[in-house]
Amino acid sequence: MRAAIYPGSFDPITLGHLDIIKRSARVFDRVIVAIMVNPQKNPLFSVEERKTLIAQSVQHLANVQIDSFPGLLVDYVRRNHVDVIIKGLRAVSDFEAELQMALMNRKLYAGAETFFIPTDAQYSYISSSLVKEIARHGGDVKDLVPDPVWRELRNKYRHMS
Amino acid sequence: MRAAIYPGSFDPITLGHLDIIKRSARVFDRVIVAIMVNPQKNPLFSVEERKTLIAQSVQHLANVQIDSFPGLLVDYVRRNHVDVIIKGLRAVSDFEAELQMALMNRKLYAGAETFFIPTDAQYSYISSSLVKEIARHGGDVKDLVPDPVWRELRNKYRHMS
Amino acid sequence: MRAAIYPGSFDPITLGHLDIIKRSARVFDRVIVAIMVNPQKNPLFSVEERKTLIAQSVQHLANVQIDSFPGLLVDYVRRNHVDVIIKGLRAVSDFEAELQMALMNRKLYAGAETFFIPTDAQYSYISSSLVKEIARHGGDVKDLVPDPVWRELRNKYRHMS
Amino acid sequence: MRAAIYPGSFDPITLGHLDIIKRSARVFDRVIVAIMVNPQKNPLFSVEERKTLIAQSVQHLANVQIDSFPGLLVDYVRRNHVDVIIKGLRAVSDFEAELQMALMNRKLYAGAETFFIPTDAQYSYISSSLVKEIARHGGDVKDLVPDPVWRELRNKYRHMS
Amino acid sequence: MRAAIYPGSFDPITLGHLDIIKRSARVFDRVIVAIMVNPQKNPLFSVEERKTLIAQSVQHLANVQIDSFPGLLVDYVRRNHVDVIIKGLRAVSDFEAELQMALMNRKLYAGAETFFIPTDAQYSYISSSLVKEIARHGGDVKDLVPDPVWRELRNKYRHMS
Amino acid sequence: MRAAIYPGSFDPITLGHLDIIKRSARVFDRVIVAIMVNPQKNPLFSVEERKTLIAQSVQHLANVQIDSFPGLLVDYVRRNHVDVIIKGLRAVSDFEAELQMALMNRKLYAGAETFFIPTDAQYSYISSSLVKEIARHGGDVKDLVPDPVWRELRNKYRHMS
Repeated sequence: MRAAIYPGSFDPITLGHLDIIKRSARVFDRVIVAIMVNPQKNPLFSVEERKTLIAQSVQHLANVQIDSFPGLLVDYVRRNHVDVIIKGLRAVSDFEAELQMALMNRKLYAGAETFFIPTDAQYSYISSSLVKEIARHGGDVKDLVPDPVWRELRNKYRHMS
Repeated sequence: MRAAIYPGSFDPITLGHLDIIKRSARVFDRVIVAIMVNPQKNPLFSVEERKTLIAQSVQHLANVQIDSFPGLLVDYVRRNHVDVIIKGLRAVSDFEAELQMALMNRKLYAGAETFFIPTDAQYSYISSSLVKEIARHGGDVKDLVPDPVWRELRNKYRHMS
Repeated sequence: MRAAIYPGSFDPITLGHLDIIKRSARVFDRVIVAIMVNPQKNPLFSVEERKTLIAQSVQHLANVQIDSFPGLLVDYVRRNHVDVIIKGLRAVSDFEAELQMALMNRKLYAGAETFFIPTDAQYSYISSSLVKEIARHGGDVKDLVPDPVWRELRNKYRHMS
Repeated sequence: MRAAIYPGSFDPITLGHLDIIKRSARVFDRVIVAIMVNPQKNPLFSVEERKTLIAQSVQHLANVQIDSFPGLLVDYVRRNHVDVIIKGLRAVSDFEAELQMALMNRKLYAGAETFFIPTDAQYSYISSSLVKEIARHGGDVKDLVPDPVWRELRNKYRHMS
Repeated sequence: MRAAIYPGSFDPITLGHLDIIKRSARVFDRVIVAIMVNPQKNPLFSVEERKTLIAQSVQHLANVQIDSFPGLLVDYVRRNHVDVIIKGLRAVSDFEAELQMALMNRKLYAGAETFFIPTDAQYSYISSSLVKEIARHGGDVKDLVPDPVWRELRNKYRHMS
Repeated sequence: MRAAIYPGSFDPITLGHLDIIKRSARVFDRVIVAIMVNPQKNPLFSVEERKTLIAQSVQHLANVQIDSFPGLLVDYVRRNHVDVIIKGLRAVSDFEAELQMALMNRKLYAGAETFFIPTDAQYSYISSSLVKEIARHGGDVKDLVPDPVWRELRNKYRHMS
């Protein structure tokens, strides 16, 4: 029984995130998609909205569960007996910041490993912030996010277009 | 039952490689350390020597086995029902070449995932080629390689110092 | 008849920007220098001031025109039948973010290409934000920006020195 | 009338190269695909074979011509009144070496500009050398190269599989 | 008599900073650890607190002095006859921004050189901001900062745990 | 009395190298420009020729001496009581390999520090190998190397143009 966590902001979940979740779910017995709650950030979607959008996007994956937590990732990992922390990698700039975090997390808690999974080439240019910027200006993000997110973004920004 | 492969030249195995093997062996049920045989390269140690040195270095790890193969990694992976390809990452330059290989391997065979594991900071500057260069000039590589490799390198280069 | 757009904040235009504009104007029949209006940013110069400073800096280039627009670059590009989006590249970190944007823009609108032009070595360390920081502290930016910008920056910050 | 050159080894041409050629042919009046002849390298395909494979791959593009030359790129560019040097960019490591070459070429001859075009995401992991390595080991490269190249590679390596 | 300056925010000083200071103090006759005062940032520790924490951390180093200044680094360097500006380098992303600053500083004042010193591998993942984030969430930063900083961070965040 | 070493192949010395030597000579009491002799490489200029070319290029710098050595840099550094190893940095790709070497050298011998000095922007695209390639094809390298090197390269390649 191996449990992995895929932590992030997921504001909102994109097709790039979903690709990493599917790949993880094939390898690990249990995958926790976990929203890191950061009171200093000003998200577009509330934690509950983000959980619902993830749930709607991964409902076909039996071994994926969804959670959220405040505070340090390593504390959550230790408490929940997680074996592996999953990070998606798109580009070199992702890599450097994530490498620093992975080494720091290893220092703070030696009981889990960080594994990096390369994002599929077709999703390499998608990020939640870019998706929001395009949607805010009325651009179509249908090919960039799961359908429930696409509908919700249209609702959010309808008054603007 | 999840099987992972850790492919490489291992000419020779270093403490950085050993660190990645240990971390993999904690997460996967079976880890294959696999020497990629490349007739176009001119290695210091023969495939059999390299296998012996790896075996001596990982003998305390029950779920690690050692193999070698010519040809394409994905062919070996498919034949042996491997689920995950493990790559250690030290630096940004590693990352780019490995990302390209990972995406190509995914294209050639969709049945396995490539996972990147960050090398521990204390081993971040070790590479097999640097180890060989230092040993060839009579430098001490005791802190850079497993003991069996250290002894073998001293034998190889004794006549030169 | 090929039209290119060189989009940016230009807050203010620097000698690095001017170098890219000159190089583009030699290759394309028409070059639009276009200020992207971002209400969420707090610029030093208003859009009108920035347009004036660009106009004063490029008046010797007959095929360069100046414009500004809110919203998505690709919408402007489509509406104005622009063939090529020009981006200047100074460094690796520029490149990664710009590559992501270029692939996204290609996804959103396939009718234009993004071309990257390397900034001349002598301007490789100039950015609008660095210029403003130096000027704010009373440093001399004469060699970093066109003359009209230099005079305007001295006016803006005179009271501070 | 704007002429662009797309220089390279093309040993052999890949779908990534073809994508850059198509994008260039839409923007420039004339595109020269030019094989740089390097006597110090040991190519798989002769210059004539490479020219034929490129010709078969671009025959639907009216404004593309094929050539080869020894010596310095800038000398060819000067002699043939080329305005723009095209380089495809896949990754950060490409970028750095190409930036150095572009600045050097600008120093040697100021009459042409180097433009970088991002390779499409789906081709980002393809290189001629990787294609040859896969084909040599009997892997299928049908989705990586134009059809004529695919057939030729099967011929070259038939005896090996 | 060679004087070096090691500028930074030091909010707070970490073991990574201390490592660079020790290495500099071995090579230069005089090392000034200088806090750059930036009124636009919102630091955790006041300038006086930061000076005290640095002083407590470097008291065993006879040729190290502590200072703070507003405005441009090059103005301070010129006024105080400093020969060398020291920057610690952890990663590629550090390097690019610092290279840009170094070239700009050389342009503004040719009388001093910028030298980069690699941070020791064991400190490569430490940054002041990461230390603060961990401490704020109740994580232990004992191995990341000098003892006086560790005690002060516990005081600051005691009410939160 | 602080001694620095600037090691390299110098096959041949370029204006970029010379720039780093001048900057080092201003800061250190003694600077040793040291040719690393590598029997596995096939240089254009012999060690003696390279020494002569360096000597002719730095004769106006009183505190610079020239040497060559086989074997490990750290052994030379230890024997000659050198305090600082100087490396010039042009680009990110330089940085990563040099960072690895610097950490390895620190591991092998803790008595010296590696300092990186940024190459001036105007020399950022110059390398010995590019200079040789251009000269071999009859290109003019007058602005890229010291005058004695320029003359010698013309002699070497006269028969080819």
